[in-house]
Amino acid sequence: VPAGDDAAVLRIPDGRVVATTDVLVEGRHFRRDWSGPADVGVKAAAQNLADVAAMGALPRTLLVGLACPPELDADWVLDLMRGMVAECGRAGASIAGGDVTAAASIMLGITALGDLAGRPPVTRAGARPQDVVALAGRIGWSAAGLALLQAGAAAGPGTGSDLTGGPLAAVQAHRRPQPPYLAGPEAARAGASAMVDVSDGLLADLGHIAAASGVCIDVDEAAVPVGEPVTAAAGLLGTDSRDWILAGGEDHARAATFPAGAVLPPGWIAIGAVRAGSGVTVNGAAWTRAAGWDHFR
Amino acid sequence: VPAGDDAAVLRIPDGRVVATTDVLVEGRHFRRDWSGPADVGVKAAAQNLADVAAMGALPRTLLVGLACPPELDADWVLDLMRGMVAECGRAGASIAGGDVTAAASIMLGITALGDLAGRPPVTRAGARPQDVVALAGRIGWSAAGLALLQAGAAAGPGTGSDLTGGPLAAVQAHRRPQPPYLAGPEAARAGASAMVDVSDGLLADLGHIAAASGVCIDVDEAAVPVGEPVTAAAGLLGTDSRDWILAGGEDHARAATFPAGAVLPPGWIAIGAVRAGSGVTVNGAAWTRAAGWDHFR
Repeated sequence: VPAGDDAAVLRIPDGRVVATTDVLVEGRHFRRDWSGPADVGVKAAAQNLADVAAMGALPRTLLVGLACPPELDADWVLDLMRGMVAECGRAGASIAGGDVTAAASIMLGITALGDLAGRPPVTRAGARPQDVVALAGRIGWSAAGLALLQAGAAAGPGTGSDLTGGPLAAVQAHRRPQPPYLAGPEAARAGASAMVDVSDGLLADLGHIAAASGVCIDVDEAAVPVGEPVTAAAGLLGTDSRDWILAGGEDHARAATFPAGAVLPPGWIAIGAVRAGSGVTVNGAAWTRAAGWDHFR
Repeated sequence: VPAGDDAAVLRIPDGRVVATTDVLVEGRHFRRDWSGPADVGVKAAAQNLADVAAMGALPRTLLVGLACPPELDADWVLDLMRGMVAECGRAGASIAGGDVTAAASIMLGITALGDLAGRPPVTRAGARPQDVVALAGRIGWSAAGLALLQAGAAAGPGTGSDLTGGPLAAVQAHRRPQPPYLAGPEAARAGASAMVDVSDGLLADLGHIAAASGVCIDVDEAAVPVGEPVTAAAGLLGTDSRDWILAGGEDHARAATFPAGAVLPPGWIAIGAVRAGSGVTVNGAAWTRAAGWDHFR
């Protein structure tokens, strides 16, 4: 069906559709002085496609609703769409439809659809005691980049940056997360018992698995990989990277549990264990600091 | 998959998914002084579910993104959701997921998904000369109700109305459109060659079929049914109902073309004919007034 009809028609051969929707609001989910339009497009697409992949599905389709002021530069909108198209390409998906309307501020309503390819969905509820906890993807990079932006340590998008190396990579990671999409379906094929998109923070999102599965998850902090950009950003700001790693969101890493003895797919790193009980612990002890983004603050 | 996971999983047995998304913005698509929260919920759900049905599909699923000020009354949001749930019930669909976030004003990002049940989609591009043009559903009711609201002839939602009878029904039709959802799949089963959701205006939307199909569509104005509420509203305002009927949007009637000799399903009324040529005519003559809602005004 060509674009412009009443609705799009998408092929999802499985007969079950994985679907998620997010609303992004300027000032809350992105700032135009911190992110360029393509960055916003990448991020908006990524966070939805990542949710689909975290069910073990192959991301297939994006639907894009955009509300924006009529006086917004058309180039800004085109670059936004270019960012979305590029990120869909990374994920193996495409944009199937959309809607544009006028509003006082910029808002995006994004829906992503995916295909389970014959496998059962990997929910948050399947973790069992003795399972291995594993991670795929970056962690703490986006939070480090956000801290640099908040500290005024980075110039605006497209202005040339005063940062280089690791700190620049952290800011870029905040602007354009790189979810390891395929790690989701690969974990499903490898028998993952539970999986979650790490968007709020590692401990907060593992807490979602613990709560849904009725188990305790213990994280071996030393096993969690700390990227060079995170270390470099912490050095530049003279701060500790621990909160970024354990509680920083928006990198869209995948966290999953696998039955003991399962062979982890490439890119997955064991970072802890599932035990009987409830909640999330770090090195066997309670974590008393913030576990991640509070949606209600 | 229970609510609260990374994404919802929906059964769409056909393996093809019909999908559409819309953004609704307070002040542009609805006014809180003209419509109550349940009205807004009904309308937001209806306009998306209607698009799915206009492809000949069965509406199945709604995904709801909501951005709203934190100080918005929780009862308003609950009533909004009640309206959406009720309209999903009318359409045979259900709400599968959503997202809520804070924003300065109320915006909705709604996605509807549907199932083709083994049939090909009915696009706008299949009309052929000699086809019959037919209509199912109300036409002009919503525009009449909007005119009454604009004229200050109706009290606000939930305040008791100063209108009765036909004019009240027109205002209610504006607040809560009643798309004849099943008429879409029934037209598909009956062999409709093209179909469109009448959301912009009858002539404007028939123009979409004419353009996509490369034909001319002629409307027999006397054959288009004029409901009593439309006549009553026109009488009250001392105006002509012609523009409401031919160019008023938002009732979400279905307009379709059927091969000559096809038996129209129940609820469908023949209102014109497809000819060789281009554009839309009324009683064989050009229509020089507005054909419907201009998205760019």
